[in-house]
Amino acid sequence: MKFNQQEAEILECILRWRRDVRYFRTDAIDESVIDELQAAMDLAPSVGNAHPWRVFRVDSPEMRAAVRANFNRCNAAAAADYSGQRQADYLRLKLAGLDAAPLQLTVFTVTDTQKGHGLGRRSMAETLHDSTAMAIHGLWLAARVRNLGLGMVSILDPDAMERLFDVPEGWQFSAYLCLGYPEFEDDTPLLHRVGWQENHAYPWERL
Amino acid sequence: MKFNQQEAEILECILRWRRDVRYFRTDAIDESVIDELQAAMDLAPSVGNAHPWRVFRVDSPEMRAAVRANFNRCNAAAAADYSGQRQADYLRLKLAGLDAAPLQLTVFTVTDTQKGHGLGRRSMAETLHDSTAMAIHGLWLAARVRNLGLGMVSILDPDAMERLFDVPEGWQFSAYLCLGYPEFEDDTPLLHRVGWQENHAYPWERL
Repeated sequence: MKFNQQEAEILECILRWRRDVRYFRTDAIDESVIDELQAAMDLAPSVGNAHPWRVFRVDSPEMRAAVRANFNRCNAAAAADYSGQRQADYLRLKLAGLDAAPLQLTVFTVTDTQKGHGLGRRSMAETLHDSTAMAIHGLWLAARVRNLGLGMVSILDPDAMERLFDVPEGWQFSAYLCLGYPEFEDDTPLLHRVGWQENHAYPWERL
Repeated sequence: MKFNQQEAEILECILRWRRDVRYFRTDAIDESVIDELQAAMDLAPSVGNAHPWRVFRVDSPEMRAAVRANFNRCNAAAAADYSGQRQADYLRLKLAGLDAAPLQLTVFTVTDTQKGHGLGRRSMAETLHDSTAMAIHGLWLAARVRNLGLGMVSILDPDAMERLFDVPEGWQFSAYLCLGYPEFEDDTPLLHRVGWQENHAYPWERL
């Protein structure tokens, strides 16, 4: 499989127009598209080919309400850490699309999996979490190229998420994902756009 | 920016033909391509727009030799954990392209960065590591669409890597990356191909 310059430019465009979306329309995503998203996520790399991510679709209003309550508690605690203008700025930010996103996923990482027979993680157990993060990133891009937005919510108490979803011992909460058609598009991160944290990058120093 | 079905299929093809590469040709990568890879990596999402990854290009033969020695120690220790047929199978695997890859990068995560002003990581500090993992995944795809291979090496002692590269307090080793043109291509993970760990996936249970 040889890729060409045009295909490289398409990938660059997908990467550039991927955003962390918090403003969603409520119209549903076709089930066939959701199947494609799952298949794309499953193409992610994983340490030892262990595939440690586990995903639940959260449809129940009660579960969604419990996640929102968890978010509200954590977000209030985070806001209380700031003061003055920064606190006011923080409180103006909309940091999750939990209110509207039609598809909501909760993602866990199995830290005691036998899959992969431990390969690649003996000295760096955290590579299992890295695998899950990469799978989320693959899902993110697959959503974007289908003109869907994804928002990754981490303002949550992970222990409470593990209790809420009653996961087995050894499963650790990784992220809660909101997906749906975005209310608007942008090639610039919202936190840069609103002045919270500007974009920056660091050169690759040569040694 | 609206993407179409053909662009979705191109992304699917890039995801499907991405591999963890350990067999590299030694011909150099053009500097202009390396610049494109860096730019693509910098489009990755990061918690609070904090951009916590730091990358060094490892050119010096002495540094490369020290990394190989670290890998050899960790790989021998990993092999010693297995016995019988599985140990023999493990010892037959080539798990890194450190011997040949023309471009080698070492990646760290800044865990005490002020960038992002703590947003999104108060209850989940590990999201900084997730950001670095996603940036590596973006680099991986950007390499693949340029017909380059990338191999992520985690069979390393992270403390020794932090000492070797003399990084500031608060920087944690994330991964060592080998890049170059691959000796062969495949749409199937090597660990599945050789029978170490077959591919598998889990459905998204609905709650």
